Amino acid sequence: ESAHEFESQKNTLTHKLQEAETKSQTLEAQLGDLEQHLESSQQESEAFRKSLRSLLELLDTKIFELTELRDTLAKLIEGSS
Amino acid sequence: ESAHEFESQKNTLTHKLQEAETKSQTLEAQLGDLEQHLESSQQESEAFRKSLRSLLELLDTKIFELTELRDTLAKLIEGSS
Amino acid sequence: ESAHEFESQKNTLTHKLQEAETKSQTLEAQLGDLEQHLESSQQESEAFRKSLRSLLELLDTKIFELTELRDTLAKLIEGSS
Amino acid sequence: ESAHEFESQKNTLTHKLQEAETKSQTLEAQLGDLEQHLESSQQESEAFRKSLRSLLELLDTKIFELTELRDTLAKLIEGSS
Repeated sequence: ESAHEFESQKNTLTHKLQEAETKSQTLEAQLGDLEQHLESSQQESEAFRKSLRSLLELLDTKIFELTELRDTLAKLIEGSS
Repeated sequence: ESAHEFESQKNTLTHKLQEAETKSQTLEAQLGDLEQHLESSQQESEAFRKSLRSLLELLDTKIFELTELRDTLAKLIEGSS
Repeated sequence: ESAHEFESQKNTLTHKLQEAETKSQTLEAQLGDLEQHLESSQQESEAFRKSLRSLLELLDTKIFELTELRDTLAKLIEGSS
Repeated sequence: ESAHEFESQKNTLTHKLQEAETKSQTLEAQLGDLEQHLESSQQESEAFRKSLRSLLELLDTKIFELTELRDTLAKLIEGSS
């Protein structure tokens, strides 16, 4: 092969390598963004579930208080007979 | 005693007897009214208590349904983790 | 009429009068009992209704608190979307 | 430059290019996995919120029914006075 031909092949390979590395960098950036998005999504989801658990405890309290009220009413009805 | 005196005593007694009998009749009428009032009062009270018992059963149902809702929420929260 | 006859009539009337007065006293006592019974019955009824009104206020509070819980849940669901 | 030197440079570049392409493929696979994970995560989250909305509607119904029960009790108390 001639020196000119070798030079041409080297340039083509160098160019392809640069393109491949640029693509890798773009993909790595996208991956980083997505991981961050997923993490913040999981944190929101965890905070949401924590709020729901507080609500569940409050609901338990309200059901308990309604049950006490129900017992008071039952005693009143029986006591007045 | 003279016949006149006897007559006078008899009249007085007859008058008192009439008054006493009138009084008895009035009292019997009052007693009858009061008994009727008391009876209708007891019937109202019984009907009232019966309505309250229906309400108590309804309240029981509502508490049961709220408890089911609470269990569904608890399962949702656990299932989403 | 003879004095003996007068005496007999007087005795009969006096006896009937005593019976009528005894009856009145018995009726008055019954009436008094019944009035007292009715009065205590009304006091109990009033106390009962007062207790029910307290219960009603408590139920109002519980419904209000459940409504607040409901609003919190609605905001959580909307905020998490 | 000698032919030997050119050959060596070409081999090095070819090897680096293969490595860069392999890395890109790995990153693309990771990105695909993550996107799929995120999508299924969003679908679960949407299904979860949909279930919570159903629960909210049920809670609305229960609060409405408790309010009706409360009104019935209020009328009973007033009607019995």
